Amino acid sequence: MTERIFTAGLVIIGDEILSGRTHDKNIAQIASWLQVQGIRLAEVRVVPDVMERIVEAVNALREGNDYLFTTGGIGPTHDDITVDAVAQALGVNVVVHPQARAILEKYYSDKPGGLTDARLRMARVPEGADLIPNRMSGAPGIKIGNVHLMAGVPHITAGMLDALTGTLEGGAPLLSETVGCWTPESEVADILRQVEKAHEHCQIGSYPFFRDGRVGANFVVRSTSAQELKSCVDSLCDGLAMAGFDFTPGGI
Amino acid sequence: MTERIFTAGLVIIGDEILSGRTHDKNIAQIASWLQVQGIRLAEVRVVPDVMERIVEAVNALREGNDYLFTTGGIGPTHDDITVDAVAQALGVNVVVHPQARAILEKYYSDKPGGLTDARLRMARVPEGADLIPNRMSGAPGIKIGNVHLMAGVPHITAGMLDALTGTLEGGAPLLSETVGCWTPESEVADILRQVEKAHEHCQIGSYPFFRDGRVGANFVVRSTSAQELKSCVDSLCDGLAMAGFDFTPGGI
Repeated sequence: MTERIFTAGLVIIGDEILSGRTHDKNIAQIASWLQVQGIRLAEVRVVPDVMERIVEAVNALREGNDYLFTTGGIGPTHDDITVDAVAQALGVNVVVHPQARAILEKYYSDKPGGLTDARLRMARVPEGADLIPNRMSGAPGIKIGNVHLMAGVPHITAGMLDALTGTLEGGAPLLSETVGCWTPESEVADILRQVEKAHEHCQIGSYPFFRDGRVGANFVVRSTSAQELKSCVDSLCDGLAMAGFDFTPGGI
Repeated sequence: MTERIFTAGLVIIGDEILSGRTHDKNIAQIASWLQVQGIRLAEVRVVPDVMERIVEAVNALREGNDYLFTTGGIGPTHDDITVDAVAQALGVNVVVHPQARAILEKYYSDKPGGLTDARLRMARVPEGADLIPNRMSGAPGIKIGNVHLMAGVPHITAGMLDALTGTLEGGAPLLSETVGCWTPESEVADILRQVEKAHEHCQIGSYPFFRDGRVGANFVVRSTSAQELKSCVDSLCDGLAMAGFDFTPGGI
């Protein structure tokens, strides 16, 4: 039985990530959230605030995946051009969404300046889009077809992901179990290779680390089948024990 | 006078980033290092440990940029396939580099197990490659043409970047200056747009934040000309002062 695998692409939009000024937190946040939805993050691209670069990345990743997410560039300032870029990628116009306008009118009604032209930019959407609720601040996220436009600020994105939880079709979630060793991964490489080869529906990733002056590695076994996962983890632990390595189930 | 702009692409290789298990630190680290070399990071792609996906990303970004960097997948385990993927992308064979072999022989001479077959994998390079010294652990980085293969573990990559410092041709470094405001960016959007328009060799990025229960934004002005940068920052501060906003030179 082959299960359908659902995949997503992610386009991170913003010069601030490419300059090193801002440390991205959305890749890990969205990746973890997708895992729980039974969707695998297949590729991420980080692109600058430049129209044609965003259009190209959006088209490349929305066509190859079940879902596309973008973060960044949906605020009120002149460098926020994600809505225009996605509209261009999809070949639709940009329109003001009445419900988004109403949300912003209400949100800014008691704030200095009220609903300025700049703030009204955040009600613009590609024609045909729906809104993704944002309980952290006024401006909503946007959903059109398989494309989801999220905020760049991580805690606002978190609120939008929350609103989307359970609304996207996914497959069996990828299960994982970790085994850790205070051993250089190079000493264990042969065991890993043999165990993975013997369990075709499992994957083993090896993640070395250097901590408290010692080297070690965590071995992460992944599968969509709980039974095959257990069998593979058992084989790995047996292999490590037979070779005389100390290991820590659950990881270090 | 138009200055030549040097650009780099970055391919981050690893299922652990796409699963959300590991929070990437290499994008910010490499981006900041490139800035100092006068090279702009133009695009990042994060791809899984899958041969054809790595080959595709490497070819897309090495051709469009002066330099390409990769991180991850150069260790001793079965999921480390970056060397093979880069060799395939460049159409060359994989060979054992004698100097890399000698480095590993020495490094592992006093370690349990010695230079095993798995460890010897780390001496494999695309034919014609040079080594990038790694003072943190045995295995070197690899440089072939404009492609630089670095470690996935951030502190090892840091050592490799250190070894490359000053060896790559770059342009004028991008200078930047920050002005911060405890103000929602939407109130300042019009001023930003006007000031940027009046200074064609400068770019202004607006980075909102939520801190200590208050919203604010940092405005980052970027230019390769110190003089134009100063003129633009002065205009921005004048504009903010005239509109009655408190601002903090240097950013918040």
